[in-house]
Amino acid sequence: MIRIGLIGTGNVAVALAREILDQENLTLVQLIGRDQNKLPKDLFAVPFSNQFNTLSSCEVILIAVSDHAIQEVSNQLPLTNAVVAHTSGASSMDLLGRHNNRGVFYPLQTFSKQRQLNWSKIPILWEGNNRQVNETLETFSQMISPNATLSDEKQRLSMHLAAVLVNNFTNHLYAEAHRFCKSKHVNFELLLPLIEETTRKIKQQDPSKSQTGPASRGDMETIQRHKMVPMTEQLRDIYSLFTSQLLNRKK
Amino acid sequence: MIRIGLIGTGNVAVALAREILDQENLTLVQLIGRDQNKLPKDLFAVPFSNQFNTLSSCEVILIAVSDHAIQEVSNQLPLTNAVVAHTSGASSMDLLGRHNNRGVFYPLQTFSKQRQLNWSKIPILWEGNNRQVNETLETFSQMISPNATLSDEKQRLSMHLAAVLVNNFTNHLYAEAHRFCKSKHVNFELLLPLIEETTRKIKQQDPSKSQTGPASRGDMETIQRHKMVPMTEQLRDIYSLFTSQLLNRKK
Repeated sequence: MIRIGLIGTGNVAVALAREILDQENLTLVQLIGRDQNKLPKDLFAVPFSNQFNTLSSCEVILIAVSDHAIQEVSNQLPLTNAVVAHTSGASSMDLLGRHNNRGVFYPLQTFSKQRQLNWSKIPILWEGNNRQVNETLETFSQMISPNATLSDEKQRLSMHLAAVLVNNFTNHLYAEAHRFCKSKHVNFELLLPLIEETTRKIKQQDPSKSQTGPASRGDMETIQRHKMVPMTEQLRDIYSLFTSQLLNRKK
Repeated sequence: MIRIGLIGTGNVAVALAREILDQENLTLVQLIGRDQNKLPKDLFAVPFSNQFNTLSSCEVILIAVSDHAIQEVSNQLPLTNAVVAHTSGASSMDLLGRHNNRGVFYPLQTFSKQRQLNWSKIPILWEGNNRQVNETLETFSQMISPNATLSDEKQRLSMHLAAVLVNNFTNHLYAEAHRFCKSKHVNFELLLPLIEETTRKIKQQDPSKSQTGPASRGDMETIQRHKMVPMTEQLRDIYSLFTSQLLNRKK
Protein backbone atom coordinates (compact mmCIF):
# COMPACT_ATOMS: atom_id res chain seq x y z
CA MET A 1 0.00 0.00 0.00
CA ILE A 2 1.40 3.40 -0.97
CA ARG A 3 0.00 6.45 0.80
CA ILE A 4 -0.26 9.50 -1.46
CA GLY A 5 -0.68 13.19 -0.70
CA LEU A 6 -1.80 15.24 -3.68
CA ILE A 7 -1.48 19.00 -4.15
CA GLY A 8 -3.60 20.81 -6.73
CA THR A 9 -7.19 21.17 -7.90
CA GLY A 10 -6.59 21.44 -11.67
CA ASN A 11 -7.16 18.96 -14.48
CA VAL A 12 -4.10 16.79 -13.75
CA ALA A 13 -4.72 16.72 -10.00
CA VAL A 14 -8.36 15.74 -10.48
CA ALA A 15 -7.50 12.98 -12.96
CA LEU A 16 -4.80 11.65 -10.61
CA ALA A 17 -7.07 11.78 -7.55
CA ARG A 18 -9.74 9.75 -9.33
CA GLU A 19 -7.21 7.15 -10.44
CA ILE A 20 -5.60 6.82 -6.99
CA LEU A 21 -9.04 6.31 -5.42
CA ASP A 22 -9.68 3.55 -7.97
CA GLN A 23 -6.47 1.65 -7.20
CA GLU A 24 -6.58 -0.94 -4.42
CA ASN A 25 -2.90 -0.58 -3.59
CA LEU A 26 -2.96 3.18 -3.32
CA THR A 27 -4.48 5.45 -0.68
CA LEU A 28 -5.21 9.11 -1.23
CA VAL A 29 -4.58 10.40 2.29
CA GLN A 30 -5.19 14.06 1.53
CA LEU A 31 -5.87 16.62 -1.16
CA ILE A 32 -4.37 20.09 -0.70
CA GLY A 33 -5.31 23.19 -2.64
CA ARG A 34 -6.47 26.75 -2.31
CA ASP A 35 -10.12 26.14 -2.98
CA GLN A 36 -12.08 22.91 -2.48
CA ASN A 37 -14.88 24.31 -4.65
CA LYS A 38 -12.65 23.91 -7.71
CA LEU A 39 -12.94 20.15 -7.26
CA PRO A 40 -15.71 18.13 -8.91
CA LYS A 41 -18.30 16.73 -6.50
CA ASP A 42 -17.04 13.15 -6.69
CA LEU A 43 -13.87 14.27 -4.84
CA PHE A 44 -15.60 16.14 -1.99
CA ALA A 45 -15.31 13.10 0.29
CA VAL A 46 -11.49 13.12 0.15
CA PRO A 47 -9.84 14.80 3.21
CA PHE A 48 -9.06 18.34 2.04
CA SER A 49 -6.88 21.12 3.40
CA ASN A 50 -5.71 24.51 2.21
CA GLN A 51 -2.76 24.42 4.61
CA PHE A 52 0.42 22.95 3.16
CA ASN A 53 1.92 22.26 6.58
CA THR A 54 -0.90 19.98 7.67
CA LEU A 55 -0.04 17.18 5.22
CA SER A 56 -0.61 13.78 6.85
CA SER A 57 2.15 11.21 6.76
CA CYS A 58 2.57 9.58 3.35
CA GLU A 59 5.18 8.01 1.08
CA VAL A 60 4.62 10.09 -2.05
CA ILE A 61 3.62 13.77 -2.31
CA LEU A 62 2.54 14.74 -5.81
CA ILE A 63 2.63 18.43 -6.73
CA ALA A 64 0.15 18.73 -9.61
CA VAL A 65 0.02 22.51 -9.98
CA SER A 66 0.89 24.84 -12.86
CA ASP A 67 4.60 25.02 -13.71
CA HIS A 68 5.21 28.49 -12.32
CA ALA A 69 3.74 27.52 -8.92
CA ILE A 70 5.79 24.34 -8.38
CA GLN A 71 8.73 25.98 -6.61
CA GLU A 72 6.55 28.07 -4.32
CA VAL A 73 4.50 25.02 -3.31
CA SER A 74 7.70 23.02 -2.77
CA ASN A 75 9.03 25.75 -0.49
CA GLN A 76 5.90 25.74 1.64
CA LEU A 77 5.95 22.00 2.22
CA PRO A 78 7.40 20.78 5.53
CA LEU A 79 10.67 18.87 5.11
CA THR A 80 9.86 15.19 4.93
CA ASN A 81 11.32 11.83 4.00
CA ALA A 82 8.51 11.23 1.55
CA VAL A 83 9.19 11.36 -2.19
CA VAL A 84 8.15 14.82 -3.39
CA ALA A 85 7.42 14.78 -7.14
CA HIS A 86 5.94 17.27 -9.58
CA THR A 87 3.90 16.29 -12.65
CA SER A 88 5.29 18.77 -15.20
CA GLY A 89 6.78 17.75 -18.53
CA ALA A 90 8.73 20.95 -19.02
CA SER A 91 10.07 21.63 -15.51
CA SER A 92 13.26 20.50 -13.80
CA MET A 93 13.34 18.24 -10.76
CA ASP A 94 15.64 20.92 -9.26
CA LEU A 95 12.60 23.08 -8.45
CA LEU A 96 12.10 20.64 -5.56
CA GLY A 97 15.75 21.05 -4.46
CA ARG A 98 15.10 21.51 -0.73
CA HIS A 99 13.64 18.00 -0.44
CA ASN A 100 16.08 15.10 -0.03
CA ASN A 101 13.88 12.70 -1.98
CA ARG A 102 12.54 14.32 -5.10
CA GLY A 103 11.39 13.32 -8.54
CA VAL A 104 9.07 13.80 -11.47
CA PHE A 105 5.93 11.91 -12.43
CA TYR A 106 4.82 13.24 -15.85
CA PRO A 107 1.69 11.74 -17.42
CA LEU A 108 1.86 12.33 -21.18
CA GLN A 109 -1.78 13.11 -21.86
CA THR A 110 -4.26 15.98 -22.08
CA PHE A 111 -6.77 16.06 -19.24
CA SER A 112 -10.09 17.74 -18.66
CA LYS A 113 -12.29 17.47 -15.60
CA GLN A 114 -15.30 16.15 -17.52
CA ARG A 115 -13.49 13.25 -19.18
CA GLN A 116 -12.53 10.10 -17.33
CA LEU A 117 -9.52 8.52 -19.03
CA ASN A 118 -8.16 5.00 -18.93
CA TRP A 119 -4.79 5.49 -17.19
CA SER A 120 -3.51 2.10 -18.33
CA LYS A 121 -3.04 3.67 -21.77
CA ILE A 122 -1.29 6.82 -20.55
CA PRO A 123 2.51 6.88 -20.89
CA ILE A 124 4.24 8.07 -17.72
CA LEU A 125 7.75 9.54 -17.76
CA TRP A 126 9.27 9.39 -14.29
CA GLU A 127 12.62 10.32 -12.76
CA GLY A 128 14.08 10.37 -9.25
CA ASN A 129 17.18 11.90 -7.65
CA ASN A 130 18.42 8.71 -5.96
CA ARG A 131 18.01 4.94 -6.01
CA GLN A 132 15.38 4.83 -3.28
CA VAL A 133 13.24 7.46 -4.99
CA ASN A 134 13.63 5.62 -8.30
CA GLU A 135 12.34 2.41 -6.70
CA THR A 136 9.35 4.16 -5.15
CA LEU A 137 8.45 6.08 -8.32
CA GLU A 138 8.88 3.00 -10.50
CA THR A 139 6.57 0.94 -8.29
CA PHE A 140 4.03 3.77 -8.05
CA SER A 141 4.11 4.58 -11.79
CA GLN A 142 3.69 0.97 -12.82
CA MET A 143 0.64 0.63 -10.58
CA ILE A 144 -0.91 3.49 -12.55
CA SER A 145 0.21 2.48 -16.06
CA PRO A 146 2.14 -0.40 -17.63
CA ASN A 147 3.54 2.23 -20.00
CA ALA A 148 5.84 3.93 -17.46
CA THR A 149 9.48 4.70 -18.29
CA LEU A 150 12.45 6.35 -16.61
CA SER A 151 13.20 9.53 -18.52
CA ASP A 152 15.74 12.27 -17.84
CA GLU A 153 14.96 15.98 -17.96
CA LYS A 154 16.13 16.46 -21.57
CA GLN A 155 14.12 13.54 -22.89
CA ARG A 156 11.08 14.69 -20.96
CA LEU A 157 11.31 18.24 -22.32
CA SER A 158 11.62 16.83 -25.87
CA MET A 159 8.51 14.67 -25.35
CA HIS A 160 6.70 17.69 -23.92
CA LEU A 161 7.60 19.77 -26.97
CA ALA A 162 6.49 16.95 -29.30
CA ALA A 163 3.24 16.71 -27.33
CA VAL A 164 2.64 20.43 -27.91
CA LEU A 165 3.03 19.82 -31.66
CA VAL A 166 0.69 16.84 -31.93
CA ASN A 167 -1.88 18.05 -29.40
CA ASN A 168 -1.96 21.86 -28.98
CA PHE A 169 -0.88 22.72 -32.54
CA THR A 170 -3.09 20.05 -34.12
CA ASN A 171 -5.98 21.37 -32.06
CA HIS A 172 -5.18 24.88 -33.29
CA LEU A 173 -5.41 23.59 -36.89
CA TYR A 174 -8.79 22.06 -36.04
CA ALA A 175 -9.91 25.34 -34.45
CA GLU A 176 -8.84 27.38 -37.50
CA ALA A 177 -10.59 24.90 -39.81
CA HIS A 178 -13.69 25.15 -37.60
CA ARG A 179 -13.71 28.96 -37.80
CA PHE A 180 -13.12 28.82 -41.55
CA CYS A 181 -16.00 26.36 -42.14
CA LYS A 182 -18.29 28.52 -40.04
CA SER A 183 -17.38 31.63 -42.05
CA LYS A 184 -18.08 29.76 -45.31
CA HIS A 185 -21.34 28.22 -44.05
CA VAL A 186 -20.10 24.67 -44.62
CA ASN A 187 -20.35 21.92 -42.04
CA PHE A 188 -17.15 21.23 -40.04
CA GLU A 189 -18.68 17.96 -38.78
CA LEU A 190 -18.24 16.50 -42.27
CA LEU A 191 -14.49 16.53 -41.61
CA LEU A 192 -14.66 14.23 -38.59
CA PRO A 193 -14.38 10.91 -40.50
CA LEU A 194 -11.34 12.31 -42.35
CA ILE A 195 -9.71 13.42 -39.10
CA GLU A 196 -10.31 9.99 -37.58
CA GLU A 197 -8.81 8.23 -40.60
CA THR A 198 -5.72 10.50 -40.47
CA THR A 199 -5.29 9.54 -36.81
CA ARG A 200 -5.72 5.82 -37.53
CA LYS A 201 -3.11 5.95 -40.30
CA ILE A 202 -0.26 7.14 -38.10
CA LYS A 203 -0.70 4.06 -35.92
CA GLN A 204 0.30 2.01 -38.96
CA GLN A 205 3.23 3.89 -40.46
CA ASP A 206 5.65 6.79 -40.21
CA PRO A 207 3.45 9.84 -41.02
CA SER A 208 5.97 11.20 -43.54
CA LYS A 209 5.22 8.11 -45.66
CA SER A 210 1.48 8.75 -45.76
CA GLN A 211 1.70 12.47 -46.53
CA THR A 212 -0.88 13.38 -49.20
CA GLY A 213 -2.43 16.58 -50.54
CA PRO A 214 -1.75 19.17 -53.23
CA ALA A 215 1.56 20.42 -51.79
CA SER A 216 3.09 16.96 -51.46
CA ARG A 217 1.99 16.21 -55.04
CA GLY A 218 3.40 19.53 -56.23
CA ASP A 219 -0.07 20.41 -57.56
CA MET A 220 0.39 24.17 -58.02
CA GLU A 221 -2.99 24.66 -59.71
CA THR A 222 -4.94 23.46 -56.67
CA ILE A 223 -2.70 25.54 -54.39
CA GLN A 224 -3.49 28.58 -56.54
CA ARG A 225 -7.24 27.87 -56.29
CA HIS A 226 -6.94 27.59 -52.49
CA LYS A 227 -5.01 30.85 -52.29
CA MET A 228 -7.83 32.64 -54.13
CA VAL A 229 -10.28 31.71 -51.34
CA PRO A 230 -10.78 34.63 -48.92
CA MET A 231 -9.51 33.63 -45.47
CA THR A 232 -8.18 35.13 -42.24
CA GLU A 233 -4.59 36.34 -42.02
CA GLN A 234 -3.87 33.58 -39.48
CA LEU A 235 -5.05 30.87 -41.84
CA ARG A 236 -3.19 32.41 -44.77
CA ASP A 237 0.07 32.36 -42.77
CA ILE A 238 -0.46 28.71 -41.80
CA TYR A 239 -1.37 27.76 -45.36
CA SER A 240 1.73 29.45 -46.80
CA LEU A 241 4.16 28.01 -44.25
CA PHE A 242 2.90 24.41 -44.42
CA THR A 243 2.55 24.44 -48.19
CA SER A 244 6.07 25.75 -48.71
CA GLN A 245 7.50 23.21 -46.24
CA LEU A 246 5.67 20.36 -47.98
CA LEU A 247 6.77 21.58 -51.42
CA ASN A 248 10.37 21.72 -50.16
CA ARG A 249 10.15 18.21 -48.67
CA LYS A 250 9.06 16.98 -52.08
CA LYS A 251 12.21 18.31 -53.82
CA MET B 1 -29.51 -0.93 -61.06
CA ILE B 2 -27.05 1.80 -62.06
CA ARG B 3 -24.31 0.90 -64.54
CA ILE B 4 -21.02 2.68 -63.79
CA GLY B 5 -17.92 3.23 -65.90
CA LEU B 6 -14.86 4.24 -63.89
CA ILE B 7 -11.74 5.97 -65.17
CA GLY B 8 -8.52 5.91 -63.13
CA THR B 9 -6.21 3.51 -61.30
CA GLY B 10 -5.25 5.71 -58.34
CA ASN B 11 -6.33 5.58 -54.69
CA VAL B 12 -9.78 7.11 -55.22
CA ALA B 13 -10.55 4.97 -58.28
CA VAL B 14 -9.53 1.79 -56.46
CA ALA B 15 -11.60 2.64 -53.37
CA LEU B 16 -14.62 3.47 -55.57
CA ALA B 17 -14.25 0.30 -57.65
CA ARG B 18 -14.25 -1.87 -54.55
CA GLU B 19 -17.31 -0.14 -53.15
CA ILE B 20 -19.27 -0.36 -56.43
CA LEU B 21 -18.51 -4.08 -56.64
CA ASP B 22 -19.82 -4.49 -53.10
CA GLN B 23 -23.14 -2.76 -53.82
CA GLU B 24 -26.02 -4.89 -55.08
CA ASN B 25 -27.68 -2.02 -56.95
CA LEU B 26 -24.54 -0.91 -58.77
CA THR B 27 -22.63 -2.56 -61.61
CA LEU B 28 -19.07 -1.71 -62.49
CA VAL B 29 -19.20 -2.26 -66.24
CA GLN B 30 -15.63 -1.21 -66.99
CA LEU B 31 -12.45 0.25 -65.57
CA ILE B 32 -10.37 2.46 -67.84
CA GLY B 33 -6.79 3.55 -67.22
CA ARG B 34 -3.34 3.65 -68.71
CA ASP B 35 -1.94 0.65 -66.87
CA GLN B 36 -3.87 -2.28 -65.42
CA ASN B 37 -0.79 -3.24 -63.38
CA LYS B 38 -1.38 -0.22 -61.16
CA LEU B 39 -4.52 -1.93 -59.88
CA PRO B 40 -4.47 -4.22 -56.85
CA LYS B 41 -5.05 -7.89 -57.66
CA ASP B 42 -8.61 -7.98 -56.32
CA LEU B 43 -9.65 -5.71 -59.23
CA PHE B 44 -8.02 -7.75 -62.02
CA ALA B 45 -11.32 -9.51 -62.80
CA VAL B 46 -13.08 -6.22 -63.68
CA PRO B 47 -13.26 -5.58 -67.49
CA PHE B 48 -10.34 -3.23 -68.20
CA SER B 49 -9.39 -1.04 -71.14
CA ASN B 50 -6.79 1.60 -71.86
CA GLN B 51 -8.90 3.05 -74.69
CA PHE B 52 -11.24 5.86 -73.64
CA ASN B 53 -13.44 5.45 -76.71
CA THR B 54 -14.31 1.83 -75.92
CA LEU B 55 -16.41 2.63 -72.87
CA SER B 56 -19.44 0.32 -72.68
CA SER B 57 -22.88 1.79 -72.26
CA CYS B 58 -23.55 3.03 -68.72
CA GLU B 59 -25.52 5.66 -66.79
CA VAL B 60 -22.66 7.22 -64.85
CA ILE B 61 -19.04 7.73 -65.91
CA LEU B 62 -16.77 8.63 -63.00
CA ILE B 63 -13.46 10.33 -63.79
CA ALA B 64 -11.27 9.57 -60.76
CA VAL B 65 -7.94 10.90 -62.02
CA SER B 66 -5.62 13.64 -60.76
CA ASP B 67 -7.00 17.17 -61.09
CA HIS B 68 -4.76 18.28 -63.95
CA ALA B 69 -5.77 15.26 -66.08
CA ILE B 70 -9.55 15.69 -65.73
CA GLN B 71 -10.04 17.96 -68.73
CA GLU B 72 -7.86 15.85 -71.03
CA VAL B 73 -9.73 12.69 -70.06
CA SER B 74 -13.05 14.46 -70.54
CA ASN B 75 -12.00 15.55 -74.04
CA GLN B 76 -11.08 12.00 -75.02
CA LEU B 77 -14.42 10.54 -73.93
CA PRO B 78 -17.00 9.94 -76.66
CA LEU B 79 -20.05 12.23 -76.38
CA THR B 80 -22.70 10.38 -74.43
CA ASN B 81 -25.96 10.88 -72.61
CA ALA B 82 -24.50 9.34 -69.48
CA VAL B 83 -23.72 11.53 -66.49
CA VAL B 84 -20.00 12.33 -66.64
CA ALA B 85 -18.69 13.31 -63.18
CA HIS B 86 -15.25 13.93 -61.73
CA THR B 87 -14.28 13.21 -58.11
CA SER B 88 -12.19 16.28 -57.32
CA GLY B 89 -12.84 18.61 -54.41
CA ALA B 90 -10.96 21.54 -55.90
CA SER B 91 -11.96 21.40 -59.58
CA SER B 92 -14.85 22.97 -61.41
CA MET B 93 -17.61 20.99 -63.12
CA ASP B 94 -16.84 23.19 -66.16
CA LEU B 95 -13.81 21.01 -66.96
CA LEU B 96 -16.38 18.54 -68.29
CA GLY B 97 -18.07 21.28 -70.40
CA ARG B 98 -18.37 19.30 -73.63
CA HIS B 99 -20.70 16.77 -72.00
CA ASN B 100 -24.38 17.67 -71.79
CA ASN B 101 -24.86 15.85 -68.50
CA ARG B 102 -22.03 16.59 -66.11
CA GLY B 103 -21.41 16.74 -62.41
CA VAL B 104 -19.13 16.21 -59.46
CA PHE B 105 -18.99 13.35 -56.98
CA TYR B 106 -16.43 14.32 -54.30
CA PRO B 107 -15.79 11.86 -51.46
CA LEU B 108 -14.36 13.80 -48.51
CA GLN B 109 -11.80 11.29 -47.29
CA THR B 110 -8.16 10.27 -47.65
CA PHE B 111 -7.67 6.97 -49.47
CA SER B 112 -4.84 4.50 -49.79
CA LYS B 113 -4.88 1.24 -51.71
CA GLN B 114 -4.02 -0.90 -48.69
CA ARG B 115 -6.87 0.35 -46.50
CA GLN B 116 -10.49 -0.68 -47.01
CA LEU B 117 -12.78 2.03 -45.69
CA ASN B 118 -16.39 1.97 -44.64
CA TRP B 119 -18.04 4.20 -47.25
CA SER B 120 -21.19 4.62 -45.19
CA LYS B 121 -19.16 7.02 -43.00
CA ILE B 122 -17.67 9.02 -45.87
CA PRO B 123 -19.34 12.39 -46.62
CA ILE B 124 -20.01 12.88 -50.33
CA LEU B 125 -20.43 16.34 -51.87
CA TRP B 126 -22.18 16.09 -55.20
CA GLU B 127 -23.38 18.56 -57.82
CA GLY B 128 -24.98 18.32 -61.28
CA ASN B 129 -25.58 20.75 -64.14
CA ASN B 130 -29.29 19.99 -64.57
CA ARG B 131 -32.25 18.41 -62.82
CA GLN B 132 -31.84 15.02 -64.43
CA VAL B 133 -28.16 14.81 -63.48
CA ASN B 134 -29.02 15.94 -59.96
CA GLU B 135 -31.51 13.12 -59.63
CA THR B 136 -29.07 10.51 -60.91
CA LEU B 137 -26.19 11.73 -58.74
CA GLU B 138 -28.39 12.00 -55.66
CA THR B 139 -29.59 8.42 -56.08
CA PHE B 140 -26.10 7.14 -56.80
CA SER B 141 -24.46 9.07 -53.93
CA GLN B 142 -27.02 7.94 -51.40
CA MET B 143 -26.46 4.32 -52.36
CA ILE B 144 -22.79 4.81 -51.46
CA SER B 145 -23.23 6.90 -48.31
CA PRO B 146 -26.15 8.24 -46.22
CA ASN B 147 -23.96 11.32 -45.69
CA ALA B 148 -24.29 12.73 -49.22
CA THR B 149 -25.15 16.39 -49.80
CA LEU B 150 -25.62 18.72 -52.76
CA SER B 151 -22.78 21.23 -52.67
CA ASP B 152 -21.86 23.99 -55.11
CA GLU B 153 -18.34 24.63 -56.36
CA LYS B 154 -17.53 27.33 -53.79
CA GLN B 155 -18.68 25.21 -50.85
CA ARG B 156 -16.81 22.21 -52.19
CA LEU B 157 -13.56 24.18 -52.59
CA SER B 158 -13.93 25.48 -49.01
CA MET B 159 -14.42 21.95 -47.70
CA HIS B 160 -11.41 20.81 -49.73
CA LEU B 161 -9.27 23.57 -48.23
CA ALA B 162 -10.48 22.70 -44.72
CA ALA B 163 -9.68 19.03 -45.44
CA VAL B 164 -6.12 20.03 -46.37
CA LEU B 165 -5.80 21.75 -42.98
CA VAL B 166 -7.13 18.90 -40.84
CA ASN B 167 -5.58 16.08 -42.86
CA ASN B 168 -2.46 17.11 -44.83
CA PHE B 169 -1.28 19.81 -42.41
CA THR B 170 -2.05 17.75 -39.33
CA ASN B 171 -0.14 14.87 -40.88
CA HIS B 172 2.76 17.24 -41.53
CA LEU B 173 2.77 18.17 -37.83
CA TYR B 174 2.85 14.45 -36.98
CA ALA B 175 5.70 13.92 -39.45
CA GLU B 176 7.72 16.81 -37.99
CA ALA B 177 7.08 15.51 -34.46
CA HIS B 178 8.15 12.03 -35.63
CA ARG B 179 11.44 13.38 -37.08
CA PHE B 180 12.04 15.44 -33.95
CA CYS B 181 11.49 12.47 -31.62
CA LYS B 182 13.84 10.34 -33.72
CA SER B 183 16.54 13.03 -33.56
CA LYS B 184 16.18 13.20 -29.76
CA HIS B 185 16.07 9.41 -29.32
CA VAL B 186 12.66 9.51 -27.66
CA ASN B 187 9.78 7.27 -28.63
CA PHE B 188 7.15 8.86 -30.93
CA GLU B 189 4.79 5.95 -30.20
CA LEU B 190 4.29 7.33 -26.69
CA LEU B 191 2.38 10.21 -28.29
CA LEU B 192 -0.30 8.00 -29.87
CA PRO B 193 -2.70 7.93 -26.87
CA LEU B 194 -2.46 11.74 -26.68
CA ILE B 195 -3.17 12.08 -30.41
CA GLU B 196 -6.18 9.79 -30.09
CA GLU B 197 -7.54 11.75 -27.14
CA THR B 198 -7.13 15.04 -29.05
CA THR B 199 -9.13 13.52 -31.91
CA ARG B 200 -11.85 12.21 -29.58
CA LYS B 201 -12.22 15.63 -27.94
CA ILE B 202 -13.18 17.47 -31.13
CA LYS B 203 -16.14 15.14 -31.55
CA GLN B 204 -17.51 16.59 -28.34
CA GLN B 205 -16.93 20.31 -28.62
CA ASP B 206 -15.69 23.23 -30.73
CA PRO B 207 -11.88 22.75 -30.75
CA SER B 208 -11.25 26.39 -29.84
CA LYS B 209 -12.92 25.63 -26.49
CA SER B 210 -10.59 22.74 -25.66
CA GLN B 211 -7.36 24.52 -26.64
CA THR B 212 -4.66 23.79 -24.04
CA GLY B 213 -0.88 24.14 -23.83
CA PRO B 214 1.70 26.74 -22.78
CA ALA B 215 0.78 29.32 -25.45
CA SER B 216 -2.93 29.28 -24.68
CA ARG B 217 -2.07 29.65 -20.96
CA GLY B 218 0.37 32.47 -21.74
CA ASP B 219 3.09 30.42 -20.03
CA MET B 220 6.16 32.26 -21.36
CA GLU B 221 8.63 30.30 -19.19
CA THR B 222 7.72 26.97 -20.80
CA ILE B 223 7.79 28.57 -24.25
CA GLN B 224 11.30 29.85 -23.48
CA ARG B 225 12.41 26.36 -22.39
CA HIS B 226 11.02 24.89 -25.62
CA LYS B 227 12.79 27.54 -27.72
CA MET B 228 16.12 26.55 -26.13
CA VAL B 229 15.73 22.99 -27.49
CA PRO B 230 17.77 22.52 -30.69
CA MET B 231 15.40 21.78 -33.58
CA THR B 232 15.18 22.01 -37.36
CA GLU B 233 14.46 25.33 -39.04
CA GLN B 234 11.10 23.92 -40.25
CA LEU B 235 10.03 23.02 -36.73
CA ARG B 236 11.24 26.36 -35.36
CA ASP B 237 9.11 28.22 -37.95
CA ILE B 238 6.04 26.13 -37.08
CA TYR B 239 6.62 26.57 -33.36
CA SER B 240 6.96 30.36 -33.66
CA LEU B 241 3.92 30.81 -35.90
CA PHE B 242 1.54 28.63 -33.88
CA THR B 243 2.74 29.96 -30.54
CA SER B 244 2.31 33.57 -31.60
CA GLN B 245 -1.16 32.87 -33.05
CA LEU B 246 -2.22 31.10 -29.83
CA LEU B 247 -0.81 33.92 -27.67
CA ASN B 248 -2.72 36.46 -29.79
CA ARG B 249 -5.96 34.45 -29.51
CA LYS B 250 -5.56 34.59 -25.74
CA LYS B 251 -5.46 38.40 -25.65
